[in-house]
Amino acid sequence: MRFYRELIQVEEAQKRILAHMNRQPAEEVALSESFGRRLAEPVTADHPVPHFRRSGMDGYAIIAADSIGATPEKPVELDVIESIPSGTVPVHEVKPGQAARIMTGAFVPDGANAVIMLEMTNGMDGAGRVGERVLIKRQMAAGENVTPVGCEIREGETVLEPGRVIRAGEAAILAAFGYDTIKVYRQPRVAIFATGSELLAVKDMLVPGKIRNSNSYMLAALVKEAGAVPLVMPVLPDDLNMVTKTLDDALRDADMVITTGGVSVGDKDVLVDYFQQWKGTMLFNKVAMRPGSPTTVGICNGKMLFSLSGNPGASYVGFELFVRPYLRGMLGQTEKLPQEWTGILDAGYDKGSAYPRYVRGSMSVVDGRLHVKPAGPDKSSIMVSIKDTDCLIVIPAGGRGVRPGEKVRVIRLNTND
Amino acid sequence: MRFYRELIQVEEAQKRILAHMNRQPAEEVALSESFGRRLAEPVTADHPVPHFRRSGMDGYAIIAADSIGATPEKPVELDVIESIPSGTVPVHEVKPGQAARIMTGAFVPDGANAVIMLEMTNGMDGAGRVGERVLIKRQMAAGENVTPVGCEIREGETVLEPGRVIRAGEAAILAAFGYDTIKVYRQPRVAIFATGSELLAVKDMLVPGKIRNSNSYMLAALVKEAGAVPLVMPVLPDDLNMVTKTLDDALRDADMVITTGGVSVGDKDVLVDYFQQWKGTMLFNKVAMRPGSPTTVGICNGKMLFSLSGNPGASYVGFELFVRPYLRGMLGQTEKLPQEWTGILDAGYDKGSAYPRYVRGSMSVVDGRLHVKPAGPDKSSIMVSIKDTDCLIVIPAGGRGVRPGEKVRVIRLNTND
Repeated sequence: MRFYRELIQVEEAQKRILAHMNRQPAEEVALSESFGRRLAEPVTADHPVPHFRRSGMDGYAIIAADSIGATPEKPVELDVIESIPSGTVPVHEVKPGQAARIMTGAFVPDGANAVIMLEMTNGMDGAGRVGERVLIKRQMAAGENVTPVGCEIREGETVLEPGRVIRAGEAAILAAFGYDTIKVYRQPRVAIFATGSELLAVKDMLVPGKIRNSNSYMLAALVKEAGAVPLVMPVLPDDLNMVTKTLDDALRDADMVITTGGVSVGDKDVLVDYFQQWKGTMLFNKVAMRPGSPTTVGICNGKMLFSLSGNPGASYVGFELFVRPYLRGMLGQTEKLPQEWTGILDAGYDKGSAYPRYVRGSMSVVDGRLHVKPAGPDKSSIMVSIKDTDCLIVIPAGGRGVRPGEKVRVIRLNTND
Repeated sequence: MRFYRELIQVEEAQKRILAHMNRQPAEEVALSESFGRRLAEPVTADHPVPHFRRSGMDGYAIIAADSIGATPEKPVELDVIESIPSGTVPVHEVKPGQAARIMTGAFVPDGANAVIMLEMTNGMDGAGRVGERVLIKRQMAAGENVTPVGCEIREGETVLEPGRVIRAGEAAILAAFGYDTIKVYRQPRVAIFATGSELLAVKDMLVPGKIRNSNSYMLAALVKEAGAVPLVMPVLPDDLNMVTKTLDDALRDADMVITTGGVSVGDKDVLVDYFQQWKGTMLFNKVAMRPGSPTTVGICNGKMLFSLSGNPGASYVGFELFVRPYLRGMLGQTEKLPQEWTGILDAGYDKGSAYPRYVRGSMSVVDGRLHVKPAGPDKSSIMVSIKDTDCLIVIPAGGRGVRPGEKVRVIRLNTND
């Protein structure tokens, strides 16, 4: 027997991979350079938001009790004691019978407990300028249009957890708390190798029997999208000594290595030979899944080696089920596995299989219901359907397949989180 | 009257914006640098995929008719005439009574019209080596395990349209067709200005009455995610002459300008003054929407100026409804408006409004049904809920609001397409 393969389930394979997590070190980058990176520190509010009582309206800060019974026909008259533009601090306390002109976002003066919008007033003798009087035409409740201190964020609250991707909402919070630089996880450098003597480089002329290496670029795009740095390496030769030297070097120099092809039972499957004499620890080499059952993963000196099946479909599915969750973990994300939904399968999938099948699918929502269908022909040798894929449809093991209209597990892809 | 505002609907506003599209010029980048960029040329298949009849199995290429009646008990014997590894071209035609050992992905020889998998054969006198014989234990149909030429992609077919984001599936196709460089749309340079005398720079110490400028960084993250280059500019002063000079310069130097704040009716709304004496063409300055009704958009010498409301919620919604669709168009995307789904509103939203309200929401799928709920407190002054937003929930205009369990329009965000 050339090698031994213990069959394990996808969930067990994921568990074994994630048990060997090595988180990336942190590095400091400027806020403007941080978009798309993952936070390596928690962000705790060092001040409440807002940190002063904020006016939600353009109008007059008043004492609500002063407005009791006010209507357009029977307005209340108040003395305007000052004008408070945004960005300034009021000088005076508002006392009974007084009002302060105030702008949206400005500091509500002590004493006042409501802001009446401009349209509900009528400044007399001009427009309610300081030293003049303003007509209040509506009764206000205490607190109306005044955002209390800490209403949005309490002081000491943890606002952002490490591992979050810095997108618009995170960027706004980081700016508000004064992070002009921010600690993010260093992007893992991922070396990507394809195997197969049929593979040409992208710029090579096509010849009969050979195809250009597209897997490496597909994986590079996925690696980049996952927040890491892809290194597309030359196609591995069919020579065990050279493969050994090349992969050993890559496992030393890069933070992770991905290979495609060479892991099944064919005569020329050089990675099978490589793993047999490998100094690392193989975590598994056979997974109950279609496509990609010969997927082989190991770890050596803390670096993961993901050897995916060579078919485009199998490489893609293997990346999403195994590599991306590990990359999420390296970048500090606590939820590592992809999010799952339940959807209605529009097209039937009558091809039974001894193993669960992960079909590249596309989602749509019709009248509030999630529908999924295969993104295209699902032979694992076919790569053209990957461009239209935004989920994996899980067809359970068994001979029957799934009929149209039945519910299926849906693994969300392309979510960037 | 200080200015005139004509109220228009969101759809009309989007139509006016998109009627003034200026597509970006193209530039050529290396395939490995192209991920996340948008294609500026169609990709047409200059060869079929596969371009040779490809074996889907590891096994023997045979003439299907030779296997008629073959079973494990009554196998058919064939002569093995050659061995065809992947990447090579067969030398011999397969004739009746003959078979060729073939690997997955290899060139199916002329004459053969089926590939029988290795496990269904039994090579005699060794293992079915060339010059020996192989036992065929199953009847094969013509075409089985042989992928015909052009089965995946036909020659001349348009495989990728301009405007597509280059992700994994696109990268695989580009590599397969030999694009080691690729034309992509040049990323628009987007100058981002905030207004407001209450705004501090991110690195400034917090003082009473003032807040740090977070809108500009929020927008910068959105701009980057949309495939453009954000330029965070200093906060605009409250001086009309300086604002005029600064914005006019920015409209000359950048490809687009976004401002936040200063567009409503307050005393200090400097952008209202700017637009009144602007040399450009204002497209609209009042939209029937909450938040963000004073959103003002114009065009000057082919460059768009988006003046969004200053509240964080209004800036965010304004970006998604108006700026992102325009950026999609600049980058060649034909589907410019965000995708809409229908979902079930989990929490009620009883705040009626004269205008449709765009509530920052988050989606989940429970048992095949799309549920949405507000991502947090939805006051437009609140920015902390943006981080948990992945959709906008549309609450129709009218006094009633929406009750829990009712269906609502859902605008998908964060899709990167």
